Amino acid sequence: MPQCKLYSREHQKDSTVVKVGDVSIGDGTVVVIAGPCSVENREQLVGLSVQIKEMGVNVLRGGAFKPRTSPYDFQGLGLEGLKILAEAREASGLPVITEVMDIRQMDLVCRYADIIQIGSRNMQNTPLLREAGKTDKPVMLKRGLSSTLEEWLLAAEYILMNGNKQVILCERGIRSFETYTRNTFDINAIPAIKHLSHLPLIADPSHGTGRRELVGPVATAALAAGADGIMIEVHPDPSKALSDGAQSLRPQEFKDMMNGLRNFRLLFDKKVSA
Amino acid sequence: MPQCKLYSREHQKDSTVVKVGDVSIGDGTVVVIAGPCSVENREQLVGLSVQIKEMGVNVLRGGAFKPRTSPYDFQGLGLEGLKILAEAREASGLPVITEVMDIRQMDLVCRYADIIQIGSRNMQNTPLLREAGKTDKPVMLKRGLSSTLEEWLLAAEYILMNGNKQVILCERGIRSFETYTRNTFDINAIPAIKHLSHLPLIADPSHGTGRRELVGPVATAALAAGADGIMIEVHPDPSKALSDGAQSLRPQEFKDMMNGLRNFRLLFDKKVSA
Amino acid sequence: MPQCKLYSREHQKDSTVVKVGDVSIGDGTVVVIAGPCSVENREQLVGLSVQIKEMGVNVLRGGAFKPRTSPYDFQGLGLEGLKILAEAREASGLPVITEVMDIRQMDLVCRYADIIQIGSRNMQNTPLLREAGKTDKPVMLKRGLSSTLEEWLLAAEYILMNGNKQVILCERGIRSFETYTRNTFDINAIPAIKHLSHLPLIADPSHGTGRRELVGPVATAALAAGADGIMIEVHPDPSKALSDGAQSLRPQEFKDMMNGLRNFRLLFDKKVSA
Amino acid sequence: MPQCKLYSREHQKDSTVVKVGDVSIGDGTVVVIAGPCSVENREQLVGLSVQIKEMGVNVLRGGAFKPRTSPYDFQGLGLEGLKILAEAREASGLPVITEVMDIRQMDLVCRYADIIQIGSRNMQNTPLLREAGKTDKPVMLKRGLSSTLEEWLLAAEYILMNGNKQVILCERGIRSFETYTRNTFDINAIPAIKHLSHLPLIADPSHGTGRRELVGPVATAALAAGADGIMIEVHPDPSKALSDGAQSLRPQEFKDMMNGLRNFRLLFDKKVSA
Repeated sequence: MPQCKLYSREHQKDSTVVKVGDVSIGDGTVVVIAGPCSVENREQLVGLSVQIKEMGVNVLRGGAFKPRTSPYDFQGLGLEGLKILAEAREASGLPVITEVMDIRQMDLVCRYADIIQIGSRNMQNTPLLREAGKTDKPVMLKRGLSSTLEEWLLAAEYILMNGNKQVILCERGIRSFETYTRNTFDINAIPAIKHLSHLPLIADPSHGTGRRELVGPVATAALAAGADGIMIEVHPDPSKALSDGAQSLRPQEFKDMMNGLRNFRLLFDKKVSA
Repeated sequence: MPQCKLYSREHQKDSTVVKVGDVSIGDGTVVVIAGPCSVENREQLVGLSVQIKEMGVNVLRGGAFKPRTSPYDFQGLGLEGLKILAEAREASGLPVITEVMDIRQMDLVCRYADIIQIGSRNMQNTPLLREAGKTDKPVMLKRGLSSTLEEWLLAAEYILMNGNKQVILCERGIRSFETYTRNTFDINAIPAIKHLSHLPLIADPSHGTGRRELVGPVATAALAAGADGIMIEVHPDPSKALSDGAQSLRPQEFKDMMNGLRNFRLLFDKKVSA
Repeated sequence: MPQCKLYSREHQKDSTVVKVGDVSIGDGTVVVIAGPCSVENREQLVGLSVQIKEMGVNVLRGGAFKPRTSPYDFQGLGLEGLKILAEAREASGLPVITEVMDIRQMDLVCRYADIIQIGSRNMQNTPLLREAGKTDKPVMLKRGLSSTLEEWLLAAEYILMNGNKQVILCERGIRSFETYTRNTFDINAIPAIKHLSHLPLIADPSHGTGRRELVGPVATAALAAGADGIMIEVHPDPSKALSDGAQSLRPQEFKDMMNGLRNFRLLFDKKVSA
Repeated sequence: MPQCKLYSREHQKDSTVVKVGDVSIGDGTVVVIAGPCSVENREQLVGLSVQIKEMGVNVLRGGAFKPRTSPYDFQGLGLEGLKILAEAREASGLPVITEVMDIRQMDLVCRYADIIQIGSRNMQNTPLLREAGKTDKPVMLKRGLSSTLEEWLLAAEYILMNGNKQVILCERGIRSFETYTRNTFDINAIPAIKHLSHLPLIADPSHGTGRRELVGPVATAALAAGADGIMIEVHPDPSKALSDGAQSLRPQEFKDMMNGLRNFRLLFDKKVSA
């Protein structure tokens, strides 16, 4: 066993910076990832990607393979969804992040994605973590629904120890007794992780709150606490979204939030990356 | 979408009985699954299997592929572990249950196991659930660490809807704020699941408590609440166990527990299966 | 500071037995406390008390001062409720337990009650605990909604150290993420508390589950795990109850449960106290 | 029952502003409450109060009556503590906030305090809430350890409906499974409460994290999310504190944090009250 964990500040003092095209995650700039929960159709995504690029977004998100609680819910467009993501990248110039759920689809997803995402439900799917550790793509690892910080960092270790150093952590809220919000966004985790680890950290206030009206304030709070970026669900018409409608912002709401954040970024001496 | 879920009592009024050799799970008898957390070596497992068979055990457990929080912890013997399980089955006559974690090993595990187990960390690994649904082996699905009853039953649905009706549920404790015990065994879940679903239900008080001295009382409680059986970790020398030592019973402790349960089974008009 | 806590098995090896009239709590018999959540009117309670006495109940419960989440909910009949309890005691011969919430009413409640109850919301109301420690009445201390075992036992210590040794603990479920049940009955707590402390322990599956159909199985489980008794909410017409209707048994349901438990008590070599 | 709750935005659209001497809580300025967990001695508190006043503190905190988990821990100086608080107010010019735990001490505490605090353990101590509702002092109501937002607001309603409209809410972290931090600061609660209620809201990152190094980032985050102020534990020598040492800032650390926040306040167009 190594003297200290690969994820730790003891192992590596300087913060890891993950580069994706022109985007640097973890270098002091604020990175904004945005897009719909699921890729639903070509027109929706391509148009939206161009629109949000202009609002200052750095990375486009969209799920092609969707992990769903019920097998009767929409499971994603699969390969078709990946192709639409590629078209949106072409149109907008934004790199794309999308989730991989099945180890057998790792190569396929890597062919289309600029960043691969491992979701909360798979945070301890160790074969998937190990395979992600063998790719050359940055991996964003979401915290499990009821994972401690230590468990989360040890899950990252499965990726790091297999050779892939481009790991990004994503705090997306934990499960608590509170029912007013979908999850409890763990703001403490942000400075705690920055203290324990050199890995960059993205906040997902969309899942962390589950309510549209709370997304902006919690995104701002996460950046104030030291997050390297935010991931926000945006949908042209949330009332018709196939998943996560209640927590998705409309484009205009997202634009307003971005304008508010622009001042915020300046204050904290962060370069405005968009 | 179907009118009612396949797991539900509305869909199927009569309780499902899963048959594994001579053992019936869900028919009113009490089934006892026991063995070490991990398969560690041939001598240990073969000897133990014969010993616990005589104490009334119906199914032998033992992990060959181990999901571990840390990548530096013992990860199981893999194929070698499966072969040892097969030898122990030969020696004792007990059917064996072991965990499958990796979809690519489904065929391999099915070749050796009589029942395949899907662990808590993989409860929402939907590709794994779907593949388990295509095998002809009974599947024991453990509840996720912070899964609601509904999420657990919907995970079972992923198996059932792929054609495999032989699904056994396993309550193994949930994560709460309490730190004295490893998990909080959710006794409410037992009558609740029997009310909502026709699937058989096994209780795992070893993981549910994490403390040796609590295993017997909670096992008894689980049967009193209506569980169809119990799964107990037994190790010849828990102080040397490669995993879960603190919650493993010594063979003599297990024997004493079984003697206590024998009266209990009679009381509840359950056939004594051993 | 003392060498060891007054609540602990180290301080006192033999189990404490609390005596209330003819009833002994903690001596190996199973004690059954039952009655409505709130005292609602004279006819209801007096009739019910006689009826449940015949079914084997040992102590009558009923709230006169009710701690409620909302100030607009029924807050109890107060002194009038205490008087009705006294009448029901007269009619049935059952000792009564009722809650004290306000330190200024301690004397008043002690004048009417045979056992005083401190509820979950007041588990760490230390002035109330200290005053309860100065009375000569047995005190039943319910576990707080999110109290660890240690916090609960230390709350009991506030009573014990003020001179009152007649403390009864009551496990009533903890708050978890599960929403199907009102609380998560912590079955682990029963053997754990019996291990750590000499104090008698009552299980409250009515609050512990919040659902009528789960009360009987969880009551049985609690006794199987080693509880010294159970406390059950019974109401002549739960649909009209002013509080806790969904978890209250109808008298006939309660009778059926008691008949089931009678066999159970015999099995465990407990004297049948009723 | 009223048409809508007194705490709600439906009942009162404009935000409540609580005035304490020159300090306004809820008017858009950022209020800073600071001081030691417990009042320990005259020299400590008087000196510290003058020192932190100069750093921009608006209100001095210090506990004279301490609710403690163990009866063997320091329980506070009582009346002597209140007198020391009054001296510190005299010396520094800062209004003081201190906790009331016992209904019998309400008058006494009101004689010395400018704001009375009701702690987490007493959030549902309804007699105490009602009495606080009859005083003419502002009341700061801390959220219970595992209280939902609705339960917290309904506890405030007990105060409001008794005539006292000067209620301040205080988010101080909730109990979750995470053990790295003492509590999980619920950042979601801040915009949610501002949405649901007109009452001012203070954040307590000292209890919300339990770790000194996390206090500053979480304080900043809470203000970014919309809190009206923060409450911070500061101690001249945390290693010797009689309570909460691990989460108390040293004066120099506090000063650094305040300097950081000063920029922050400007950004958000809040008047700098110090």
